[in-house]
Amino acid sequence: MKLARYKTSNPYSYAFGATLTFELLNTHPELIQRVFLRPDIKHGEDLEQIIQKLQQRHIEIIESTKAFNIQGAKDSCLMMAEFKKPSQKLDDEQPHVVLVNPSDSGNLGTIMRTAAAFGYQNLAVILPAVDTYNPKTIRASMGAVFHLNIQIFNDMQEYINQFGANRRQLFAFMLDKNATSLENVSAPTHNYSLVFGNEASGLPKDFATWTGATPIFIPQSSQVDSLNLSVAASIAIYHFANKTTL
Amino acid sequence: MKLARYKTSNPYSYAFGATLTFELLNTHPELIQRVFLRPDIKHGEDLEQIIQKLQQRHIEIIESTKAFNIQGAKDSCLMMAEFKKPSQKLDDEQPHVVLVNPSDSGNLGTIMRTAAAFGYQNLAVILPAVDTYNPKTIRASMGAVFHLNIQIFNDMQEYINQFGANRRQLFAFMLDKNATSLENVSAPTHNYSLVFGNEASGLPKDFATWTGATPIFIPQSSQVDSLNLSVAASIAIYHFANKTTL
Repeated sequence: MKLARYKTSNPYSYAFGATLTFELLNTHPELIQRVFLRPDIKHGEDLEQIIQKLQQRHIEIIESTKAFNIQGAKDSCLMMAEFKKPSQKLDDEQPHVVLVNPSDSGNLGTIMRTAAAFGYQNLAVILPAVDTYNPKTIRASMGAVFHLNIQIFNDMQEYINQFGANRRQLFAFMLDKNATSLENVSAPTHNYSLVFGNEASGLPKDFATWTGATPIFIPQSSQVDSLNLSVAASIAIYHFANKTTL
Repeated sequence: MKLARYKTSNPYSYAFGATLTFELLNTHPELIQRVFLRPDIKHGEDLEQIIQKLQQRHIEIIESTKAFNIQGAKDSCLMMAEFKKPSQKLDDEQPHVVLVNPSDSGNLGTIMRTAAAFGYQNLAVILPAVDTYNPKTIRASMGAVFHLNIQIFNDMQEYINQFGANRRQLFAFMLDKNATSLENVSAPTHNYSLVFGNEASGLPKDFATWTGATPIFIPQSSQVDSLNLSVAASIAIYHFANKTTL
């Protein structure tokens, strides 16, 4: 199989570094196509363990400096796994995190990390959006991407049709001071989704009306225009994780 | 005054873009030395307003493309303020956020933004650390840096000597499952500081012992090694902001 620099349209992506490769091997070994090693990687006990696991699964191991250059990996990256991007479905029995048009791979990866940390395994991404399996997103997620069910939707309507307000409570985080303050939101009575808009534009003003969502506001001082998206989502996820388990 | 690319040792730094320049003009106009405009900037009503304010303060306005190139500003950056980095002291009567050896300008700026959003105006940065007034930090803070009192300390001992456990409660966020869970922390009885370690290494294991701090843990699943630093700090700041105002 030829190697070309990663593009969003590729069915394969790349996990840079031994830690992410190991995470992938522990969660979705069936997705790994090939593993690349830099010829100058140190052959210690840890590496032998990974190689043994890869061999047991008949995964091809290729020593190559060129492969790392093609993918734009840093010099410090000595191992890289090529894997098939999975096609997943959300679990209707679980709470969801829904990101509408996230545009920054760092934010997307950081939110994945927080979601996995607080037991939110199901992530919906509404297009247009930054690439969920871009190596930068994977790195920012610190491997959390491999612990999540991620489903991509062409637009919010498609999500609503499958998981809309008749089936679950939607909580929409808005920069609207008339919305319910996060601290005053009642604990969900049934299954729910936490919905966040784009970094620059947020959710559309009429979002709550047409989706049946409950608009929520995280109270903040007038010294800032808004919170960073990954911060707002993390505070909300933390808050709901604690509220619903109390 | 000659213009050279920003370095940490410079007494001056640069706020890129009209929004940050405006924020600086509203908070610390006395710090602004010069403002640079790209010759192709559009002269609309907003720009005339800023120019008028600058002229009232006798701040030099320079049209120059070269200045933007020297500072490595993006082509979309049409205005840039050169300002004197302030030397500030923390307010002993207020809660502090204390960052021990933060190494990423994005995290540092994001934490500034969250701190300002939740009314934490006093930020201690313990060296070695990423540069507080690096243009990247300023940008990540979305201008919140100009709303904060920021004091730099050579080491934690210097902070303790000035603001230590005899004067205020210290809450140290640690990856230690024996520490008190964030949800179970009692509301502070007197003034306090929220202390966070480096992205990769956290706080030293014996930190709580020698500083007299209360170690706190944000409960999280075993699927992640840790939370992103700006996420952990933001959750803690949000939690304390609400706990202490209830």
